[in-house]
Amino acid sequence: MPEATSAAALPVVYRCTIGPEWVDFNGHLRDGYYMVLFSSAVDALMDLAGLDEAGRKATGHSWFTLEAHVNYLHEVKQGAAVEVRLQLLGLDAKRLHVALSLYAQGGTECMALTEQMLLNVDMVGPRSAVFAPAVAAYLQPLAAAHASLPRPAQIGRVMALPQPK
Amino acid sequence: MPEATSAAALPVVYRCTIGPEWVDFNGHLRDGYYMVLFSSAVDALMDLAGLDEAGRKATGHSWFTLEAHVNYLHEVKQGAAVEVRLQLLGLDAKRLHVALSLYAQGGTECMALTEQMLLNVDMVGPRSAVFAPAVAAYLQPLAAAHASLPRPAQIGRVMALPQPK
Repeated sequence: MPEATSAAALPVVYRCTIGPEWVDFNGHLRDGYYMVLFSSAVDALMDLAGLDEAGRKATGHSWFTLEAHVNYLHEVKQGAAVEVRLQLLGLDAKRLHVALSLYAQGGTECMALTEQMLLNVDMVGPRSAVFAPAVAAYLQPLAAAHASLPRPAQIGRVMALPQPK
Repeated sequence: MPEATSAAALPVVYRCTIGPEWVDFNGHLRDGYYMVLFSSAVDALMDLAGLDEAGRKATGHSWFTLEAHVNYLHEVKQGAAVEVRLQLLGLDAKRLHVALSLYAQGGTECMALTEQMLLNVDMVGPRSAVFAPAVAAYLQPLAAAHASLPRPAQIGRVMALPQPK
């Protein structure tokens, strides 16, 4: 099971429990709130990379989401304890391309996957800026380690209606 | 200005004001909440198509979001009065492919655009189902009218780091 093995090797960057304010009348996580959850996972990654509140103040930097794609694979119920795993798909001087996947805590079935392009921004401007050295030093080994992992099938996907048979 | 003309011709399906619970410490709409806003716009489209609460009860149908792509183009501030415009990109017996664009009310500058694939679902199962006749009768003329409009540049986009020069 190479997929399960590689997914298990990915670092968990965020854990939470699905609260009642995020679900619809069926008790399922609403589509929009998956992205709120993934946004919190990006905040957690920023913390890990040294861009917590103190780091943002020291560098004057933050990250902006330029673009995102999400595939909803399974329903997520109120009260579910979930985790978000990170795969760094690409990195340059000022951008990172990430895959974030949602699992039950310790689970093996991906419930949703988002691919996002994030830009490092100097909040004076605001304008794009190269990563601060300490942030780059955190991200570069992660990108190198993740480069050899298989990419989830949904990455780079173009959505379209199925062709008539 | 053909783009502005065609955007102005698109129906507005949802209007709201950006509340304080959706913004970050800079007073800007957080990335995840754009998708919550677009989710409400899909709810509003369901209402227009006859799948309001009574219609959902009568048909047993609802719509599930399978997949979405979003491009963040401009910051949106707390207190902004915004509207979501709809372009139906495609329609088959049980799926609709939509573009939803976010503007200031009456504005001409697109602030974010999402492309989504939605599936009609019979909640008994749940399993995919053909649209109820009245719903199809609402969607088909809209799809026909929108088929000749130019598609936004972001539709079908595959995200990637820029190639080094």
